[in-house]
Amino acid sequence: MNLQEKIDKAIRNVPNFPKEGIMFKDITPILEDAQLSKEIVSKFASDWKGKIDAIAGIESRGFLFGLPVAMELGVPFILIRKKGKLPYKTVSHKYDLEYGSAEIEMHIDTVKKGMRILVHDDLLATGGTAGAASELIQKEGGKVAGFSFLVALGFLNGTKALEKYCKESISLITY
Amino acid sequence: MNLQEKIDKAIRNVPNFPKEGIMFKDITPILEDAQLSKEIVSKFASDWKGKIDAIAGIESRGFLFGLPVAMELGVPFILIRKKGKLPYKTVSHKYDLEYGSAEIEMHIDTVKKGMRILVHDDLLATGGTAGAASELIQKEGGKVAGFSFLVALGFLNGTKALEKYCKESISLITY
Repeated sequence: MNLQEKIDKAIRNVPNFPKEGIMFKDITPILEDAQLSKEIVSKFASDWKGKIDAIAGIESRGFLFGLPVAMELGVPFILIRKKGKLPYKTVSHKYDLEYGSAEIEMHIDTVKKGMRILVHDDLLATGGTAGAASELIQKEGGKVAGFSFLVALGFLNGTKALEKYCKESISLITY
Repeated sequence: MNLQEKIDKAIRNVPNFPKEGIMFKDITPILEDAQLSKEIVSKFASDWKGKIDAIAGIESRGFLFGLPVAMELGVPFILIRKKGKLPYKTVSHKYDLEYGSAEIEMHIDTVKKGMRILVHDDLLATGGTAGAASELIQKEGGKVAGFSFLVALGFLNGTKALEKYCKESISLITY
């Protein structure tokens, strides 16, 4: 089996989560397989080696593979969190959700001017949160150098929505 | 400098977070130092090698070092999350906070009977959340084999509070 097939086999489909009619892609069985997790870290690292200066991981499942990949590439790992969670001075960005809105934050001193930053999360849906993370990075003078996801829901066209920030986007598996 | 001194140097003290009068230990500068992060993973792994069958990481900062250490030791990584976040069938435990209460969950199929599990989080305060995680593990037939934290606030006596679950507890730095 190649890596994509292994990921597909490990992912659990959970019907009607977080709401009726949604088939949720549950990645938690992947985390119980240390060997598969290592292969995923290696793949992410080889995809982006030499092309980025830091990784910004989105709370909270973006923290899982984000830090190991950053360690593997020897680059800083930056936290993108929901409003009110980061202790130091932050920059924030509010964005629309299907119902209502959300706000995310990043510490102000983490992004240096011109830094090439990879935005990472476990799942790409519409791209709303990754887009908001890109806004934070750009506000601080950084350059969005790419997007990396474990899983993409292709039918929601998130990659297209993120093109305004950067066209480089790699998802390990697309449904 | 030894590892403890490096961690102490990297941690940022943020006054009055999350509320007036609290001096918050901000670990985010550690994550921006890939070399230091790697040393931390190695230390955690060497502390627990051969003594555990899985690591349970507490949302969300417990996800940061939890998965890399699990990969290093070749054991499963289990998510402990706030209520409503895990998609599959869960076991949950409600516990008291200083004001009000909180509830955490774990998937029901992750812990096998007799499995020796390390509870991991970034910070040990009173031990309330780590104790609740222990309850989840015991409900599912697992054995709490230890506690691992990056930082412990010694004056809050969390280690003492957790002794009823397991006396093995290692924090890389204690304030």
